[in-house]
Amino acid sequence: MGAGMAKSIAICAVGDELLAGAHPDLNSPFLARALLEMGHEVRQVIVVGDDEALIAESVERLARSAQLVFVTGGLGPTLDDVTRHGVARAVGSELVTSPEALAQIEAWYARSRREMPSSNLRQALVPKGAKVLFNPTGTAPGFEVACETSRVLVLPGPPAELQAIWSEVVEPLLIASAPVECLRLVRSFHLQGLSESVFADQCGDWMGRDENPLLGVTVARGVLTVRCVARGQNEDQVQALLDGRADQLRERFDQWIFSQDTSDPAEVLVRLLEQRGETISCAESCTGGLLSAALTGVPGASAVFSVAHTVYSAKAKQEVLGVSEQLLRDHGAVSEQVAGAMALGAAERTGANLALSISGIAGPEGGTPERPVGLVTFGVCYRGRVWTEKRNWAPLAGRAQIRVWATSHALVRGVRALEGRLDFDQSA
Amino acid sequence: MGAGMAKSIAICAVGDELLAGAHPDLNSPFLARALLEMGHEVRQVIVVGDDEALIAESVERLARSAQLVFVTGGLGPTLDDVTRHGVARAVGSELVTSPEALAQIEAWYARSRREMPSSNLRQALVPKGAKVLFNPTGTAPGFEVACETSRVLVLPGPPAELQAIWSEVVEPLLIASAPVECLRLVRSFHLQGLSESVFADQCGDWMGRDENPLLGVTVARGVLTVRCVARGQNEDQVQALLDGRADQLRERFDQWIFSQDTSDPAEVLVRLLEQRGETISCAESCTGGLLSAALTGVPGASAVFSVAHTVYSAKAKQEVLGVSEQLLRDHGAVSEQVAGAMALGAAERTGANLALSISGIAGPEGGTPERPVGLVTFGVCYRGRVWTEKRNWAPLAGRAQIRVWATSHALVRGVRALEGRLDFDQSA
Repeated sequence: MGAGMAKSIAICAVGDELLAGAHPDLNSPFLARALLEMGHEVRQVIVVGDDEALIAESVERLARSAQLVFVTGGLGPTLDDVTRHGVARAVGSELVTSPEALAQIEAWYARSRREMPSSNLRQALVPKGAKVLFNPTGTAPGFEVACETSRVLVLPGPPAELQAIWSEVVEPLLIASAPVECLRLVRSFHLQGLSESVFADQCGDWMGRDENPLLGVTVARGVLTVRCVARGQNEDQVQALLDGRADQLRERFDQWIFSQDTSDPAEVLVRLLEQRGETISCAESCTGGLLSAALTGVPGASAVFSVAHTVYSAKAKQEVLGVSEQLLRDHGAVSEQVAGAMALGAAERTGANLALSISGIAGPEGGTPERPVGLVTFGVCYRGRVWTEKRNWAPLAGRAQIRVWATSHALVRGVRALEGRLDFDQSA
Repeated sequence: MGAGMAKSIAICAVGDELLAGAHPDLNSPFLARALLEMGHEVRQVIVVGDDEALIAESVERLARSAQLVFVTGGLGPTLDDVTRHGVARAVGSELVTSPEALAQIEAWYARSRREMPSSNLRQALVPKGAKVLFNPTGTAPGFEVACETSRVLVLPGPPAELQAIWSEVVEPLLIASAPVECLRLVRSFHLQGLSESVFADQCGDWMGRDENPLLGVTVARGVLTVRCVARGQNEDQVQALLDGRADQLRERFDQWIFSQDTSDPAEVLVRLLEQRGETISCAESCTGGLLSAALTGVPGASAVFSVAHTVYSAKAKQEVLGVSEQLLRDHGAVSEQVAGAMALGAAERTGANLALSISGIAGPEGGTPERPVGLVTFGVCYRGRVWTEKRNWAPLAGRAQIRVWATSHALVRGVRALEGRLDFDQSA
């Protein structure tokens, strides 16, 4: 934790759903990570249901030992949301309607061109004297209030809202009120095709908690994001620390790194195509539209993307993409040969420079000893040349996960094709 | 908690990694869910790092208010694992080597045909008087110990080990020692097209915390899930409570309810089609594959789904689906007319009984005063007849959210078409 500048921090996560086993608490890990990168360690998290007395008791207790207490969730408009009541009780204040909070909620509804239901009035209630924190994406404003010598920051529970209010409001507020005296810079690397444990094994003690740079790893949608956070007294020193670790990472993990900017391989691919004035299409079987959805999820995708096909049945592969019946019979729909023919067919029929295809067995049914669940074949057709590949994922990972991994995998293969890093001559 | 038969339960999850933002705590949701299904509600979860004093303090405090305290994690062989020390301190016992625990660890190594490192001796330590709980998959035995009037159950942290020890050892132990005397039943309703606040407004005090049934609401992917949990002494009484609330919910919210089984409208739609031996296709613009991906996300979708198209450009709408240039020019690509033509084209060209189409402006760019971001038009073609609709979502919701809402909306329109609840005569 270093030089005693660090604050003692606790989190109280509120929500019946967190205790009903429906959802893990994702906000606390997010906050803990973000705070750790600022040099602060979270010492304790308490998760309680939507229970006013228990919220009050927890906040009060945490405020006795922590300088900063975050409370998340339970700020919705419905009667079961009682976080503001619990916090008011903890700090011994009454709840009052904040004109500022009300104005924010009304503005949200005005922007949405919808009428504000009267239940939302409840969301304008804050403990008397609280400072309202603007919620950039939802209707529930957050607020800050003092409890004994602690600062209590109360934030909305939906993760997207929590993350937006953190980065736009809370993080700047913390930096402004307690300037970090040592410089802190972050550099990220996004990898595809490597598991968290293999990464951890291969990077050894770089992940130690006292390392500088501090290395953190998160995994989402088949993408491993490595964040390096370096600290030091001046920019040269911190950049040198980051450069050193970056070199080591590139040396060991270059084949898996696809980006330093964004963890979304679809975005990397769309931007690359844009820069080159090229176009893409895709042909999907087991992913059934996820690849197309990922590409069109990138704002501005229309500059490079016009059409794509989900060809779930053998008949559709023949009719829509011209895959030959013979090929399907000889090799089966899940084969490198058919994946290659799908990519070629998609490129020829849509006129796209680049076409990606996926055909696999996502399960839970449909596996055979030769073609087990988790087998996925890929095709890339770039400027008329075809490259294919097959992968085996663990059947146990499940249908949804296999489809998501296959999608990220195909997108990164597209990036590699544009970068000239796929060996089209070596393909089956 | 109602009739006082259910146990008051708390969990203390231990592990530095849980506070470093690397991993959410998945054990607590697992235990909470499993306990809830036995009729017990978890009232509180505390997450602390590998810190002996804090573990001791947390366990002691939880044992004062809960009858059953679960402690998870921190039972590894390394020096940073101090859960057994913290628990021993909380219950005021010394740690002793348990011959039974030692035998289990030795047996584990014998089965793995590996030599036991001496560090594993540490895992045989338990507070004096503790009952050892057999770990079916790992080296760390769990144990149970009394703390004041509470039972404290200490379990290994790796989720696979936790889940194995739960189902093979802990659950049978709880059932044997405390049969559930108060009956508790759950019924869920899944709604689409209604916000949490509007629902709350219309259901009034049904959501109060002392209501029986207790009503809880969660929102995901544009679907609102209402859980009713009723408690009572016997099945007739509890079923009657649920029936009463279910009737009221149906009376007020029938037009939005699409399922009682699953919150996934794609699953409802695929199952309905399967039962009727009918087939589906879709044609997407702004959702760009999400609809197709949702349908193929349902295991067994191949029985009803063969092919779908993403037609992002005007040209693709013409070429792939036969939408006329005239129609596109007269009404624009985002119009009920074009959405209707897309659905009709998809049905005709794929031979599917049911075709769904979506064309809209997901943003952030591309909006105009007449066609703002958030405007989405839908088409349904069922057995040759076409129905269309338009919706306006708040631009602020953002591209990703608008696409997800539009997808759920279209799927539920498909369900309604099959149920005979779309008025095809009234369509534009």
